[in-house]
Amino acid sequence: MERVDVDAILEQVREALAGEDWNQAVALVEALRPPDQADIFGELPPTEQDQLLPRLDLEDSADILEELEEEEAAEIAARLRTEELARILDEMEPDEAADLLGDIAPERAAEVLATMEEPEEVRPLLVHADESAGGLMTSATITLHREMTAKEAIAHLRVIAPESETVYYLFVVDEEVRLVGIVSLRQIVIASPDTCIEEIMGPDVIHVRADADQEEAARLMARYDLLALPVVDDVGHLLGLITHDDLVEVLEEEATEDIYRLGGVLEEHPPDVPISAALRTRLPWLVLNLGTALASATILSLFESTIARVAVLAAFFPIVAGVSGSAGTQTLTITVRGLALGELSPRDGLRALRRETLIGLANGIAVGGLIALIALLWKGTPMLGVVVGLATLLNMFGAGIAGALVPVTLQVLRIDPALASPILVTTITDTCGYFIYLGLATLVLGMLI
Amino acid sequence: MERVDVDAILEQVREALAGEDWNQAVALVEALRPPDQADIFGELPPTEQDQLLPRLDLEDSADILEELEEEEAAEIAARLRTEELARILDEMEPDEAADLLGDIAPERAAEVLATMEEPEEVRPLLVHADESAGGLMTSATITLHREMTAKEAIAHLRVIAPESETVYYLFVVDEEVRLVGIVSLRQIVIASPDTCIEEIMGPDVIHVRADADQEEAARLMARYDLLALPVVDDVGHLLGLITHDDLVEVLEEEATEDIYRLGGVLEEHPPDVPISAALRTRLPWLVLNLGTALASATILSLFESTIARVAVLAAFFPIVAGVSGSAGTQTLTITVRGLALGELSPRDGLRALRRETLIGLANGIAVGGLIALIALLWKGTPMLGVVVGLATLLNMFGAGIAGALVPVTLQVLRIDPALASPILVTTITDTCGYFIYLGLATLVLGMLI
Repeated sequence: MERVDVDAILEQVREALAGEDWNQAVALVEALRPPDQADIFGELPPTEQDQLLPRLDLEDSADILEELEEEEAAEIAARLRTEELARILDEMEPDEAADLLGDIAPERAAEVLATMEEPEEVRPLLVHADESAGGLMTSATITLHREMTAKEAIAHLRVIAPESETVYYLFVVDEEVRLVGIVSLRQIVIASPDTCIEEIMGPDVIHVRADADQEEAARLMARYDLLALPVVDDVGHLLGLITHDDLVEVLEEEATEDIYRLGGVLEEHPPDVPISAALRTRLPWLVLNLGTALASATILSLFESTIARVAVLAAFFPIVAGVSGSAGTQTLTITVRGLALGELSPRDGLRALRRETLIGLANGIAVGGLIALIALLWKGTPMLGVVVGLATLLNMFGAGIAGALVPVTLQVLRIDPALASPILVTTITDTCGYFIYLGLATLVLGMLI
Repeated sequence: MERVDVDAILEQVREALAGEDWNQAVALVEALRPPDQADIFGELPPTEQDQLLPRLDLEDSADILEELEEEEAAEIAARLRTEELARILDEMEPDEAADLLGDIAPERAAEVLATMEEPEEVRPLLVHADESAGGLMTSATITLHREMTAKEAIAHLRVIAPESETVYYLFVVDEEVRLVGIVSLRQIVIASPDTCIEEIMGPDVIHVRADADQEEAARLMARYDLLALPVVDDVGHLLGLITHDDLVEVLEEEATEDIYRLGGVLEEHPPDVPISAALRTRLPWLVLNLGTALASATILSLFESTIARVAVLAAFFPIVAGVSGSAGTQTLTITVRGLALGELSPRDGLRALRRETLIGLANGIAVGGLIALIALLWKGTPMLGVVVGLATLLNMFGAGIAGALVPVTLQVLRIDPALASPILVTTITDTCGYFIYLGLATLVLGMLI
């Protein structure tokens, strides 16, 4: 397969819809794979979406609602007739159906559930928090009993004829639906037909509790290379399972969250969120930044008379504060990502601190020396070079300490290091930088004029 | 399973090794899962690693070398005897074996390959670039022919009894090993036994060429929710396949690369890289930052006489430049991540630019107004408030434009937006900020004194 040219097909669908050629539009959409179907569907105006959706196969409609962005799917669902929506939800994966029901009005959701044919697969999934392992899981519709043989298991699968690919790991339960083992479809297929499931199953199953954080579940799946992770309650009953497509989604979500937070965007949102919502997310952070900038401004105010006497000092503000800020950002970036990936744990904190302090010192000597030379050659005052260079050296040393210490401390305090580290480290490097620089300058003021 | 307490077991392994109780040490390690085995093994000193490894099962040794960090695995491999290493490589997944061989000295690798029992599974993998789809793939050891029946396919699998989990998607080839279809193990199992593979296979297989970028392969797998992706040459011959564990690794790698680059760390490295290597990565970036800071310093120098006359102006530098810098960072973060995830494409650039410009304007009015008020109340000079507030407004407006325009332009020019956006946007917000602020101040100088 070559990459589908979604734009070209979208054009054709639009033409077909404009000519009210429903069959052609349906044929174009149904020939595509679900993510491409959703891309095209999402670009259509609501009236055309409402005309096209009931004409598609139920399965395609279900796929499209699964693949669309949450808000978009909820909007379309809200416009569908209750029976139509219930039929589509019956076709959807239970976890996706539960997510969609959670996004529409509660009374409407209750009404739709009452109209569904198989509400019992979806209802238990509705009680778990969105970001928990339980919120991520889907119903485990296929379980095996330990006394089955491989042949019986295959016959059982053939009867159920599951449509989903959640069949590759099969979970084995006892009479009380407690999880007792795991067996892969591969093992069942290659085992001799009369082998008992209990003989080939692995008894020690990696699992999570329903109330665990979704990131913990994703880390377990990534670490142990799992295609499916069973979710249990506090007495070990199998409640459902998390599948590999959720893993990919959670990993991308968590990476995006960290990237956003490190960039000062506190709440994740798609690039095309309404402007008012974007302002609500971003403005408070800017006001907080204004607060920390005022700390630097206060330091600078203390030294107003020094600046008035040697105005050339001000020219080096961006260098003393900015370059150390970049060094601090480097250190905090490595520390925050190391903590997120589990490559670094708070007990490695002291070692990381020593390393980063040494790196800060070495960087400081190199960059500080260079800045001193530039200042000397540019402004021709030797003592200015000494002050600028020494201030940079000391500040980069401090940036190394702050860049390592702040994220590790936040992690210990159970505050997301990605969230608060950048603003704290920048505030430290800015205020310390200005204080050291202008403090030194004031001490040797006579030699600067 | 509860999370394994790796530290406690490491202690026990160390005690066993100190008492030369090899059986106990081996038993402790072999009871664990591969990632935990590798964690413990990696913490041991080289002499103990060398004593323990030959005593472990070949399969466990192979697992450990697969799971260790690349550099660590290469160091251990370099110390093993050729025969020992060849036996372990025979047990490893072909793609992992090829990666390891690529990390040791070429003459040694040739010698080891000549000693291996199944070098033909690994040799073809060695020719592909590390970051390409070919570099990521493993050998497709199990393929089906289209005229087989489901029953014959299952019998075939039982004979091969594959150990790996790459069996869930089976690729169908013609006589010339050209990829003609895909069938899942699920479909084979639930089909009636006499169905021909050709009837149940999907003929339209999503695939990549061996020279495609690994990120393209990962995006395809994530988008279409694939457990395995076939890799073909330019005439469609099946060369191998990329498995879901590689997908997770590439996604994490790409996210880490973006996070590092946005944080000014140009080359990814583990948190405990040697200090000299860390300096080689970080120092050039700081020197580049110094260069852009000099641009701001030059602007400030132009206004030295203004600063000398109204030194209080300097106190607001961190506010005018810093808060706009934060706004610019917010915008570029959202734009860069949107481009990386494919949620935003360069042709949406104009729409993104308009949105971000409006957001910048709205933020600027809010923050600029607040700063103006603070400046007025703090310093008691109305015109100072006007200058500070207006400069902030204009600069945040510019930050919105730069934050959207720079990453999109870089993407069009095929330069990684994560790499160059932060330094370019900061340089723009800093230099423009100082110029606008001090330019305005100079215009109304008489009303500020």
